[in-house]
Amino acid sequence: MKTAILSVGTELLFGQITNTNTVYLSNKLNMLGYDVMYHYTVGDNPERVFDMINLAFEDCDLVLTTGGLGPTQDDLTKEVACEVMGDELVLDDDAMEELVSYFKNLGREMTENNKKQAILPSRAKVFYNDAGTAPGFALEKDGKYIICMPGPPREMTRMFEKSVMPFLESMSDDVIYYRMIRAFGIGESQLETELMDLIDDQTDPTLATYAKEGECSLRIASKKKSRHEAKEAVDRMLETVIERIGDYIYSCDDEELVEVVCQKLMKKGLTLSSAESCTGGMFAAAVTDIPGISRVFQRGLVTYSNEAKMDELGVRAETLDEFGAVSEETAVEMAEGLKRVSGSDICISVTGIAGPDGGSREKPVGLVYIGFIYGDKKLCKKVLMRDVNRKWNRHYTLLSMLDMINKNI
Amino acid sequence: MKTAILSVGTELLFGQITNTNTVYLSNKLNMLGYDVMYHYTVGDNPERVFDMINLAFEDCDLVLTTGGLGPTQDDLTKEVACEVMGDELVLDDDAMEELVSYFKNLGREMTENNKKQAILPSRAKVFYNDAGTAPGFALEKDGKYIICMPGPPREMTRMFEKSVMPFLESMSDDVIYYRMIRAFGIGESQLETELMDLIDDQTDPTLATYAKEGECSLRIASKKKSRHEAKEAVDRMLETVIERIGDYIYSCDDEELVEVVCQKLMKKGLTLSSAESCTGGMFAAAVTDIPGISRVFQRGLVTYSNEAKMDELGVRAETLDEFGAVSEETAVEMAEGLKRVSGSDICISVTGIAGPDGGSREKPVGLVYIGFIYGDKKLCKKVLMRDVNRKWNRHYTLLSMLDMINKNI
Repeated sequence: MKTAILSVGTELLFGQITNTNTVYLSNKLNMLGYDVMYHYTVGDNPERVFDMINLAFEDCDLVLTTGGLGPTQDDLTKEVACEVMGDELVLDDDAMEELVSYFKNLGREMTENNKKQAILPSRAKVFYNDAGTAPGFALEKDGKYIICMPGPPREMTRMFEKSVMPFLESMSDDVIYYRMIRAFGIGESQLETELMDLIDDQTDPTLATYAKEGECSLRIASKKKSRHEAKEAVDRMLETVIERIGDYIYSCDDEELVEVVCQKLMKKGLTLSSAESCTGGMFAAAVTDIPGISRVFQRGLVTYSNEAKMDELGVRAETLDEFGAVSEETAVEMAEGLKRVSGSDICISVTGIAGPDGGSREKPVGLVYIGFIYGDKKLCKKVLMRDVNRKWNRHYTLLSMLDMINKNI
Repeated sequence: MKTAILSVGTELLFGQITNTNTVYLSNKLNMLGYDVMYHYTVGDNPERVFDMINLAFEDCDLVLTTGGLGPTQDDLTKEVACEVMGDELVLDDDAMEELVSYFKNLGREMTENNKKQAILPSRAKVFYNDAGTAPGFALEKDGKYIICMPGPPREMTRMFEKSVMPFLESMSDDVIYYRMIRAFGIGESQLETELMDLIDDQTDPTLATYAKEGECSLRIASKKKSRHEAKEAVDRMLETVIERIGDYIYSCDDEELVEVVCQKLMKKGLTLSSAESCTGGMFAAAVTDIPGISRVFQRGLVTYSNEAKMDELGVRAETLDEFGAVSEETAVEMAEGLKRVSGSDICISVTGIAGPDGGSREKPVGLVYIGFIYGDKKLCKKVLMRDVNRKWNRHYTLLSMLDMINKNI
């Protein structure tokens, strides 16, 4: 089904925020087998929104909108959608109930303008918003569909996953089955080179590579009449891919590396502690983002200063003096000290130079040492990143730490 | 001048990459006083690119395109632009020379298809590309302008800064000045209610509110003949806004809360340590994301287990038994323990239930206690969030911690 995505919001035209909704939706819609033909963005202006929806329907059968559903005066997408689809707005009792309980739970008073959000098109299939106040909805006329969702990415993605995706799945004929393979330690161009013949010959399944911050993904997709057929085609191709680049793959189901590692630790009943310098708590934060991790993760020490490294981890002053805070020796003593204080099965430490300052000829920005202890294994890995920027260096260091655990347990 | 931005590239419709060009150009164009009315994205399809440019010109006098200028077969933006503007393609000797020297410098042979890039509209003002091979250009017909730039962000931004911006500056009359106010602790609808009369009456400056994950922004913008006039109008309005909602405002220059707090700490020469439970290191990670913070941030303890709370911070077993890990008493003892071990000027602690599990009737998911010590000040704040999800709860807790520091130093 030919599809257009319409983003409504003057803030997008001002260039204040990046339109992440559109990339998210495009990705999901393609996965579901919808052909995304156009992206449009207009401001909070009812005439232009009206024109744009009509324009989209000239060529497409499905229009998804984000934004303009909130309580404020410039939120007018709903009114316009209603006009285009020849429907009228009525009070939706369930939506009103949801709203009232939302504010009650929050202990805040509901201002008058909020009530507007419970007024919805009479024929709409309503999608409740459990991350905010504005409900979304789908509305049909003469075989054309409009789906309106709120603009804040958190609300939109939650509504999409929970309500819109099942709705769209129920509308489609062909079945797309796909798997998203994720790899660390291999660049996108190398990945493409390894798989070149498969990519060149592709009809179905199709292969597409994606670069992601420090990682690579490979999407294997098949579109068939049945899920079973599609799945079989994808799984056959996956076997070939694993033969070629299996060493780099950490997930065949689009999981984050941190998820993979934490699930492994939980399954094995291993405990974990961390001692971080340059990543400053990012490792602990990433790990503790996983629900249920409290059985595994015991403590994280962010020893940013030398004093903290000595106090908390017993790193020796002489080590810091002789080899420096960023050295194999310090990384190892950090991991050993962590093992002493935490007693965790796995102890991981990191020290490095995230930049932009603090680099030198011998120890440039982007140099990192990761210490690791698990049972008899005591390892230290040196990582030298091409210095992109502080954020990137810290992010790549985090991935390297997770990869080190993943490969050694 | 009314302006549209057209992105050309099938990869954008697949959701493989985020359209950062459009946000960049929107921001720059607004600053230059151009009214960005529409964003469009289409695939590498000449008919649709043709239709879209014509559509844009119905309402706009300026269309900027990115993408589709390269050497490959599906790069057709130039041909289409030429058709729309009634021009013909001719060999541009200077562009050819640039191309030849580009490949020479690179030590690579120029393949035949690259020559296509030196063929340009006969009336075009050409913008040479010093970060890649495809030149851009501006083309005028009957007072309407099209500006075509390459798609890779690095090439596009460089060409924009160096050539397109001066070209646009020479064409524009008005100047826009704006400030972006950021606030925490006030919802978007409440913000609008407080400023309703100003928003209703707006002509210039204009006011617009935005919701951001757990925060709110307000943009005050003015468009005048000179930057000075526009700035004066914005600053006058800002005074009124500060009178009304000053308590919630943490930045008038679109800074992140963590930036504001860290800058304050650096300026005051205060040291900081943190003891985190439910945020699991997010606070330390956020703070250490700021370059130069090592003078301020000393250590972060992620005391996830009760044992770690007792070991690292000296929280008493009786306190944990009697009041629980998530309690005012524990938060206070965590902060006190942190003060003892770190000696930092500011010690902040947090304990709470991030979910999805672990909640109870008396202590629901979303309940958090933040402990804070600074000089004689010893505070504990209870925050009860509506449970959206674990990520949100942790994010909002982080903002609450930063807000607590910001308001108390």
